Amino acid sequence: MEEKTIKVHLSNTKKAKPAADQLEFGRVFTDHMFILDYTEGSGWHSPRIVPYQSLTLDPASIVFHYGQTVFEGLKAYVTKQGEVRLFRPEKNMERLNRSNNRMCIPQIDESLALKAIKELVNLEKDWIPTAPGTSLYIRPFIISNEAYLGVAPSKTYQFIVILSPVGAYYKEGINPVKISVENDFVRAVKGGTGEAKTAGNYASSLKAQELVSNEGYAQVLWLDGLEKKYIEEVGSMNVFFKINGEVITPELNGSILEGVTRNSVIQLLTHWNVPVYERKISMDEVYEAYKAGLLEEAFGAGTAAVISPIGVLAWQGEQMKINQGETGEISKKLYDTLTGIQYGTESDPFGWTEKVE
Amino acid sequence: MEEKTIKVHLSNTKKAKPAADQLEFGRVFTDHMFILDYTEGSGWHSPRIVPYQSLTLDPASIVFHYGQTVFEGLKAYVTKQGEVRLFRPEKNMERLNRSNNRMCIPQIDESLALKAIKELVNLEKDWIPTAPGTSLYIRPFIISNEAYLGVAPSKTYQFIVILSPVGAYYKEGINPVKISVENDFVRAVKGGTGEAKTAGNYASSLKAQELVSNEGYAQVLWLDGLEKKYIEEVGSMNVFFKINGEVITPELNGSILEGVTRNSVIQLLTHWNVPVYERKISMDEVYEAYKAGLLEEAFGAGTAAVISPIGVLAWQGEQMKINQGETGEISKKLYDTLTGIQYGTESDPFGWTEKVE
Repeated sequence: MEEKTIKVHLSNTKKAKPAADQLEFGRVFTDHMFILDYTEGSGWHSPRIVPYQSLTLDPASIVFHYGQTVFEGLKAYVTKQGEVRLFRPEKNMERLNRSNNRMCIPQIDESLALKAIKELVNLEKDWIPTAPGTSLYIRPFIISNEAYLGVAPSKTYQFIVILSPVGAYYKEGINPVKISVENDFVRAVKGGTGEAKTAGNYASSLKAQELVSNEGYAQVLWLDGLEKKYIEEVGSMNVFFKINGEVITPELNGSILEGVTRNSVIQLLTHWNVPVYERKISMDEVYEAYKAGLLEEAFGAGTAAVISPIGVLAWQGEQMKINQGETGEISKKLYDTLTGIQYGTESDPFGWTEKVE
Repeated sequence: MEEKTIKVHLSNTKKAKPAADQLEFGRVFTDHMFILDYTEGSGWHSPRIVPYQSLTLDPASIVFHYGQTVFEGLKAYVTKQGEVRLFRPEKNMERLNRSNNRMCIPQIDESLALKAIKELVNLEKDWIPTAPGTSLYIRPFIISNEAYLGVAPSKTYQFIVILSPVGAYYKEGINPVKISVENDFVRAVKGGTGEAKTAGNYASSLKAQELVSNEGYAQVLWLDGLEKKYIEEVGSMNVFFKINGEVITPELNGSILEGVTRNSVIQLLTHWNVPVYERKISMDEVYEAYKAGLLEEAFGAGTAAVISPIGVLAWQGEQMKINQGETGEISKKLYDTLTGIQYGTESDPFGWTEKVE
């Protein structure tokens, strides 16, 4: 008895939209949100769009104590043709269900979730900023809201989608950042929750991030939790290295998030006949390549920044300057192509974008 | 400009208290709760006791997305003298601040937090059940409630204390459980958040727990995340083994929670001149002791169960039956002594209990 019809309760008031030059990331939210409830025995039910509003939760709700929660992040873009498009949203819905499986949250109907996102984005399309590089960030998430202090999966959940107009990640063009290799703190380990998009991974990362930002670095480069040898991710992005003409990214191993941008980068490079490998890569290997003058580029890949070039990589007291601290050729081409596809200024050979109507 | 005076806003209505034989764990809450706010720049402020009520949170609150949260757990007991007592509450407050440090949450005034707990417990003292083994469970926790989707520490928090009358953990006397050694999933790893009492550790544990409970086990025994060799915890308790007259518990290593009951067990054993060691202990060592007939007892130690004897330990296809599946002598003596101190039927040589007035 699945309900597929989304009830819509429109807001009586409209918030002022931020000026184009005032846009930040994730601070302002649109007028409406989507909610879907789960109750053990009844499944997911009552899909509805309602005015953006506070959530009312019992203080004993499982999410506050045991963090049983998952989320996703994607964006809606206004193309140069004036259409509203999403980028590979079905990949986010698939990953949401993989995260659900790891976190003991019931599977969600991916087509209903995607339909809900599209209906909500369409309703809020006036909120999508149109200046170059701006977009509407979409945050679907699930929280466990049973009021129970036992350590057990919740019997009730809410799937919620909120929207936030966001500014260009790079205000003055794509710009390399300084990264510090993290040797003390660990983001995730095989058998843990690293491949799930769940709250605890991000909570765990705050301390290392706080310490390196005091030293002037933008993010940390995470190493594996076992040997502190192999590279995993950079900040909350996947990471790529170009060494002697070949591009390498850490293989998925149970502790690395399977990024949608990561997957798109691999497909584009393959399409361009640039050799690209998913395999283990150690900091020793990166350092040796650097010393031999073969470390050509390094960059993060994720939804927020798309491509984030690494200009300086600090490890064991050494500051490796990569590509003279400038954005590399492949990084730039990937950024231009991916954003070009997203904003409709480039052709979309893989059919990655999906129109919202 | 710290406010130390706790404002009290009493509830107009009183909930019905559960019958003594209907008490569960963490499902029913008392009439009031304590709240303390944190705002960047102002620090912790506005301590207050208010009617137990839902929390109202922006859906973009950091706790829902990035799980920046910590908690504690302790109990209030009515002693045979009719007094209300807490067990080593200052240890919980110290650990709360250690957890805060790891999770980038501002330090809290431990004496104010303890004062708040005492005032709240005193106000709700009619809620403390008095049947043997029952108590009032106290759950202090901190949530990050800034509405911001950036991965960064929150600028606002709430410290909240809720109370729940709980039944006896063992309805028919202390009872050994079946435990399965976990070989796939990992609870925590050095450099992660295992030694902090934070939501993500518990979310991470749900899947393994779900799988073994389908096979008839009560909990998993967690091994280290590096080699899957050394023992860490059992379920959400610390763990002890008695081998050939000596008691061994895994040493604190950054991924093991420093339990208050663990510390009390070590002190009691030392007081009784029972050899007790905090050191690495591998499953191989436990298995060899078992084969040699030297594995005398095994038990978990934590606030909820106090002492939880392990009757069967399953590992690599073998079911190790410990002490004929019965509660061992040391386990029983520790349980009787700890609960005796808590309920005032035994003397309290260490001054562990603290009167609430």
